[in-house]
Amino acid sequence: MEPKKRRIETDSMGEIEVDASRYWGAQTERSLKYFQIGKDKFPRELIRALGIVKKTSAIINSELGLLEESKKDLILKAAEEVIEGLLDDHFPLSVWQTGSGTQTNMNANEVIANRANELVGAKLGSKSPIHPNDDVNKGQSSNDVFPTAMHIATAESIHKNLIPNLNLLQSKLNEKSESFQNIIKIGRTHLQDATPLTLGQEFSGYAAQLSYSLDRIERGLPSLYRLALGGTAVGTGLNTHPEFPLKVASAISQETGIPFVTAPNKFEALAANDSLVEVSGILKTIAASLMKIANDIRWLSSGPRSGIGEIQIPENEPGSSIMPGKVNPTQSEALTMICAQVIGNDVAVTIGGASGNFELNVFKPLIIFNVLNSIRLLSDGCRSFANHCVEGIKANESKIQSNLNQSLMLVTALNPHIGYDKAAKIAKLAFSDNLTLKEAGIKLGFLTKEEFDKWVNPKDMI
Amino acid sequence: MEPKKRRIETDSMGEIEVDASRYWGAQTERSLKYFQIGKDKFPRELIRALGIVKKTSAIINSELGLLEESKKDLILKAAEEVIEGLLDDHFPLSVWQTGSGTQTNMNANEVIANRANELVGAKLGSKSPIHPNDDVNKGQSSNDVFPTAMHIATAESIHKNLIPNLNLLQSKLNEKSESFQNIIKIGRTHLQDATPLTLGQEFSGYAAQLSYSLDRIERGLPSLYRLALGGTAVGTGLNTHPEFPLKVASAISQETGIPFVTAPNKFEALAANDSLVEVSGILKTIAASLMKIANDIRWLSSGPRSGIGEIQIPENEPGSSIMPGKVNPTQSEALTMICAQVIGNDVAVTIGGASGNFELNVFKPLIIFNVLNSIRLLSDGCRSFANHCVEGIKANESKIQSNLNQSLMLVTALNPHIGYDKAAKIAKLAFSDNLTLKEAGIKLGFLTKEEFDKWVNPKDMI
Amino acid sequence: MEPKKRRIETDSMGEIEVDASRYWGAQTERSLKYFQIGKDKFPRELIRALGIVKKTSAIINSELGLLEESKKDLILKAAEEVIEGLLDDHFPLSVWQTGSGTQTNMNANEVIANRANELVGAKLGSKSPIHPNDDVNKGQSSNDVFPTAMHIATAESIHKNLIPNLNLLQSKLNEKSESFQNIIKIGRTHLQDATPLTLGQEFSGYAAQLSYSLDRIERGLPSLYRLALGGTAVGTGLNTHPEFPLKVASAISQETGIPFVTAPNKFEALAANDSLVEVSGILKTIAASLMKIANDIRWLSSGPRSGIGEIQIPENEPGSSIMPGKVNPTQSEALTMICAQVIGNDVAVTIGGASGNFELNVFKPLIIFNVLNSIRLLSDGCRSFANHCVEGIKANESKIQSNLNQSLMLVTALNPHIGYDKAAKIAKLAFSDNLTLKEAGIKLGFLTKEEFDKWVNPKDMI
Amino acid sequence: MEPKKRRIETDSMGEIEVDASRYWGAQTERSLKYFQIGKDKFPRELIRALGIVKKTSAIINSELGLLEESKKDLILKAAEEVIEGLLDDHFPLSVWQTGSGTQTNMNANEVIANRANELVGAKLGSKSPIHPNDDVNKGQSSNDVFPTAMHIATAESIHKNLIPNLNLLQSKLNEKSESFQNIIKIGRTHLQDATPLTLGQEFSGYAAQLSYSLDRIERGLPSLYRLALGGTAVGTGLNTHPEFPLKVASAISQETGIPFVTAPNKFEALAANDSLVEVSGILKTIAASLMKIANDIRWLSSGPRSGIGEIQIPENEPGSSIMPGKVNPTQSEALTMICAQVIGNDVAVTIGGASGNFELNVFKPLIIFNVLNSIRLLSDGCRSFANHCVEGIKANESKIQSNLNQSLMLVTALNPHIGYDKAAKIAKLAFSDNLTLKEAGIKLGFLTKEEFDKWVNPKDMI
Repeated sequence: MEPKKRRIETDSMGEIEVDASRYWGAQTERSLKYFQIGKDKFPRELIRALGIVKKTSAIINSELGLLEESKKDLILKAAEEVIEGLLDDHFPLSVWQTGSGTQTNMNANEVIANRANELVGAKLGSKSPIHPNDDVNKGQSSNDVFPTAMHIATAESIHKNLIPNLNLLQSKLNEKSESFQNIIKIGRTHLQDATPLTLGQEFSGYAAQLSYSLDRIERGLPSLYRLALGGTAVGTGLNTHPEFPLKVASAISQETGIPFVTAPNKFEALAANDSLVEVSGILKTIAASLMKIANDIRWLSSGPRSGIGEIQIPENEPGSSIMPGKVNPTQSEALTMICAQVIGNDVAVTIGGASGNFELNVFKPLIIFNVLNSIRLLSDGCRSFANHCVEGIKANESKIQSNLNQSLMLVTALNPHIGYDKAAKIAKLAFSDNLTLKEAGIKLGFLTKEEFDKWVNPKDMI
Repeated sequence: MEPKKRRIETDSMGEIEVDASRYWGAQTERSLKYFQIGKDKFPRELIRALGIVKKTSAIINSELGLLEESKKDLILKAAEEVIEGLLDDHFPLSVWQTGSGTQTNMNANEVIANRANELVGAKLGSKSPIHPNDDVNKGQSSNDVFPTAMHIATAESIHKNLIPNLNLLQSKLNEKSESFQNIIKIGRTHLQDATPLTLGQEFSGYAAQLSYSLDRIERGLPSLYRLALGGTAVGTGLNTHPEFPLKVASAISQETGIPFVTAPNKFEALAANDSLVEVSGILKTIAASLMKIANDIRWLSSGPRSGIGEIQIPENEPGSSIMPGKVNPTQSEALTMICAQVIGNDVAVTIGGASGNFELNVFKPLIIFNVLNSIRLLSDGCRSFANHCVEGIKANESKIQSNLNQSLMLVTALNPHIGYDKAAKIAKLAFSDNLTLKEAGIKLGFLTKEEFDKWVNPKDMI
Repeated sequence: MEPKKRRIETDSMGEIEVDASRYWGAQTERSLKYFQIGKDKFPRELIRALGIVKKTSAIINSELGLLEESKKDLILKAAEEVIEGLLDDHFPLSVWQTGSGTQTNMNANEVIANRANELVGAKLGSKSPIHPNDDVNKGQSSNDVFPTAMHIATAESIHKNLIPNLNLLQSKLNEKSESFQNIIKIGRTHLQDATPLTLGQEFSGYAAQLSYSLDRIERGLPSLYRLALGGTAVGTGLNTHPEFPLKVASAISQETGIPFVTAPNKFEALAANDSLVEVSGILKTIAASLMKIANDIRWLSSGPRSGIGEIQIPENEPGSSIMPGKVNPTQSEALTMICAQVIGNDVAVTIGGASGNFELNVFKPLIIFNVLNSIRLLSDGCRSFANHCVEGIKANESKIQSNLNQSLMLVTALNPHIGYDKAAKIAKLAFSDNLTLKEAGIKLGFLTKEEFDKWVNPKDMI
Repeated sequence: MEPKKRRIETDSMGEIEVDASRYWGAQTERSLKYFQIGKDKFPRELIRALGIVKKTSAIINSELGLLEESKKDLILKAAEEVIEGLLDDHFPLSVWQTGSGTQTNMNANEVIANRANELVGAKLGSKSPIHPNDDVNKGQSSNDVFPTAMHIATAESIHKNLIPNLNLLQSKLNEKSESFQNIIKIGRTHLQDATPLTLGQEFSGYAAQLSYSLDRIERGLPSLYRLALGGTAVGTGLNTHPEFPLKVASAISQETGIPFVTAPNKFEALAANDSLVEVSGILKTIAASLMKIANDIRWLSSGPRSGIGEIQIPENEPGSSIMPGKVNPTQSEALTMICAQVIGNDVAVTIGGASGNFELNVFKPLIIFNVLNSIRLLSDGCRSFANHCVEGIKANESKIQSNLNQSLMLVTALNPHIGYDKAAKIAKLAFSDNLTLKEAGIKLGFLTKEEFDKWVNPKDMI
């Protein structure tokens, strides 16, 4: 294999060789060299958000007379390509780098500068006409750029991915709830048979959980709308125009269609990442909620013979080559694993959030990596579970009916007619001799078949 | 020691002896016997909430014509004593019991019935005129009573304890921020010297964190306002009057002054405890936030000689018998430990919340124990930290000034006057020869003392 | 009520009033005043361990000629009372105090000194003949005393409480495994019916889990055997006799019967609490393991009619007043809640363990509080579960047999006799028409009743 | 772009098209379709381990006369390619799939069969001469194959990656400890100045932490050596040769050079993954330990002027373009973020481990994904931290000396010479007037310069 072509890039520490086919510069290259740790890279959403920061900053700096029109236009073109994902191969850095995300901010600055310079035929590494620090990073600092990108990426992911998929799952569960509204079944508390309800009511509980999940994540969004940009290195806004923060927040808002605002207190916005800890806490609340639903579905479909078996889930893959009816609840399994991961991710985020010092929290890459990962997992998990499991759920009415018929809890309906004592005797005989309540009642001579059918009506109990 | 007097109580399993000096009955006694686990008991707040449920249920049942006026009055008197805490010695059960909290609900029923009966001279254990199940628990089930009490106890604790103490700490931090607003100090990012800000700005970040904490916990309250009561055993409301849920929520609201409502979906309200998982997530967000502040305070006060030493914290206890100025940051230490505990508690709550099955989550005692514990710890921790640490914080202005003076970051202020290159040379000499910037600048002949003092003004950098 | 009598105590900060009926002194009183946080106090085990440290230190200091015989004898008497628990009411401090545990070490010094002085008729608070610092704390520092007491308390708790109760549960599960060894039942994977095994084999898996739990906790003990005592304030052993560390470890070993040794590196022993983080990790591994077992038991006993119902657990308390056979799995519920708590506690311990700085970890009270709490909960939980649940478990053989008979997985046994294709047809018909395999096979004319009974023998499959 | 070529593969559900350039078959393709969740795939180590299972199984099956020699040879060749990583592109499945890992086991079976058949010129998808189920999976089940591969991959990763890198870091810390053994510095407890120790002693504590970490992970290995293989579907070993388990464990042992054994209880080995929960607990203990060290390093190097500044860390990347000496502790930041992630991963693993049911734990992909990820992160993190930070650490002796000189804790050395009272007066004056102890002592006339230098010798205090 021919050796890769290399070119020279420079920074304040001197020259360094980089892959000639890439737009990144010296600082990115140094990070590549010193942080060969794990395989995790920042996801698309964050790279896109950095592009948005660079684009809108150039627009506002130009508007404020701090950046020439021609430079602005060049930065815009290159930043647009970052936003659209055309330059993702030029963002090679590990998540496990400096805790401020500086190296990834510099990566964005270097890629945009080199790409912009290339657009006007300048040499890569020339830093002219566009300089990565002086122009692309103008009026900014990694310390305000990176948390701003974190908020943008998270808010966009929630709006574009999480909310639609929570909605999808909510509506599928709701459809099932409606179509099952007349199917009466035995209730279960402590895993023990209890008084009846409808299968539709049971599913209405799941649908309500999803409605509340949507409500929860929406209540968390305003915390994300506060942007750090304009605080620069320590929150004072040194080296940036006093009108920059307000204007750039408004430009980001316009670019994304999301109502971002400039953070009222920039010291908090750099030094703490509490808003992302909050959102992570909401994500794990949703995970805990989904885990209950996914578990119920796999238990309700357990069997085919020696389980609960009250519903059937779709058979997407072979369960057993010879045994029909053995349908493994694989979608439930994937979703419960996802939920466990999101709960674990939340602990990592919380530790990172608690570990800031003075003017800067330096656990930012950890925090955003886990938050975006949790959002993606929950979003994909909900969509997969909705489409490949919930949509195809069918009630196993004969099993539901037989469970209901043999239940002993229905005996409570006899109390007003034959009294508590006789009712209890019926239940005891049914249990000890393995009879239905009806059989036991008739055997004891306390009632007739007709009376039983008239008095014991599960419909009256729901 | 004389053996304790015993009396007989009964339940459906038969007779059992109980301590004659206690109001509890057979089911409480059985739980005592079978759950000798740990030392944890439910806190006051939950017992009080159970009293509120019993009192308001009696009022509404009477209003609906289901409970005689005289019985209602008796239950009210006894329930009032439970609410006021006069009968706490009669609630002996372990947290580690049945996962529905049934045994503690029965404990409340038994204590109220016995106490009510005693009030009219009836024998303890007689269940007459007031019957623990038929009267005190009328139209209720442990499955809706217990989660209702959980929500009441949590909402009351937040209103009465957490919010006031967060407010206290917020206001103390705010006072400090204001009184420190003119003290310029070196900033720190990555623990490295950075551009300056005021000590007031630094504290304004902490105060903002507290304001957002208040905002977060308030946004979580509406989830707690939804009450399960009226769902009875599985959410269908079997055995309760159709008007009971709405009326009793309103009565609880009136009793507590908190805007509780009846849960729109009772199946969710029994089967999931997502609202408490959500609140626990908010509590741990606050914990992560407080941990950052408490850590900053202990680092800023480190020293007295070989630390950062920019602030002095009050000396509440002896640090060293011989060495003055050694003031251990014990309030910070207590608060950071509390925060770690709250984060751990949240994991326990989340696992409990994720582990419900079908019509009932049976991790309820675990969940409420941890949530109330976290609220108490955060409340007490904030109050102690506010009163015994923040209130007494003093700026160590001479140390702040000397840190600022010897900082190399101020060199950036010279760029417009002598150019980047000369400024960098000054900084390099200062660093290598351990000089101040002023000394190095004069030594290099790049500027005079007067020019330095005129040009390098940290006030212009904040 | 008469006001409590007060007396004066002093420390380097001056005089302070304390409750005249208590042995504690000024430093304890100051801590009481400044740390009114939560309700948590150190458990018996830690107070006892502090008594052991004080007793053995006095013995060795006397042996080394540093403490007069008469003083030693007095300290011994008082320390013995601390060890035996006679003075627990004199240890009032909150867990949420200084992170080194200094205040609780001083509490021990003060109580022992006052009690010793009282024994010779001296005035409380006189510090004579026994001085809390100079005599009781001689050659020690809170910084080495407290972590030493943490290791002693943990190791003793594991030996005296956890290991015996894990053994108890292991042996009960083993007994069940043996008595169930001939009961063939359907297996379940993915909650779906699978090939058979014996109920004894299923329980042998649980018993093996307990054996490995015992093995795990035993492998963690040697880390606990390393004692910090002798490191004094920062690990250098300043102010203690060079022979003190080795001798006192040996004395503690003799006192407790546990093979403690002096830590080879005292800097690690003060600055890190990794050994307790390790042990906490083992405790949560045991918790995860127990949770699986407790869940299996509650699912296997689910029903009585509409669940799995293959075992019966003892009925310790009323399930339903009218419905027989409804036995709530309350012991499983308590145990699973405990497991969730231990997992949460482990997160708190881990955060505390990770948060040390320089020569001292100051999250010690948090760490030891949670570790001892987890040990107590697991110990009590195992005992309760063993005695009140496992011991009384009975196989529900008729349900097991009927589940097995109607299973479709047994069809695989027909392959060698009638070929895969015919076997699959039998299974399909049985599933679609809700028949047993035998019925379907006969209906299809592929085999006779006798052939089926000969060929399909679950015993051959286990 | 030309559409990809497709070919037909079949399974019990029928035909399905797959990418013609890939070796996988129908079941892999179905999983791809139904589990479009996240971006996470199983790492190299697990694919390699599956190759080892398939290779050794073929060898033993052949040895037992169950697989023809010619088939064995073909399977060996293909499995060898899997082991070496040549076929990694043919393992496309998401981690978030069925909880047993069945789909990835089938992926391995399909790839090996197709590749083997290709080697003899047979058509892909022909399943002849090598059949994925009948030959490659012979005598195995996903339920025993997958946990076996989990143990192999984890044990290999620990031996090949984690232990060498823990050793590397241990030895670098040890070197520093030795080279710093004569540098006396101020100690710090509660972040407050304390009695002195040497910088070498401080680093010896870190080195000891690493030694114990190595000890911990080695004590966890035997749990991993127990292999599930031979248990087949539910642990009974149905459909495998009775000699298979012992022989295959021995073959795996030989293949890997690691002393694997067959698990004594196969029911435990399938139904629980406690051994991996245990190992994850050890990994997070190591993470907590490393976090303390990485934090100390960043604090000790804080400054350059207004921090502690007792050590200098290597400058790998630009800190500030103008300000010399500002070296951000980026390696510490990466390592502390890694530690937070490992602690979070451990929570996910624990939840997964606690969530098994009956004969199978179905959180296996979650568990192995996190354990392998934690091992990789810790290994890479230790190597990076050792090579790019610890190796280059230098003591800043002038700062250490000046911190020591101005310390007030040294006053304790004067007690024996001038008495406690005068010593305390010296300390108080030094503190209030911001003097050194020497200056204060001379000013008060309590001693001469010469006496001070003779009496106050930090070397005597370490």
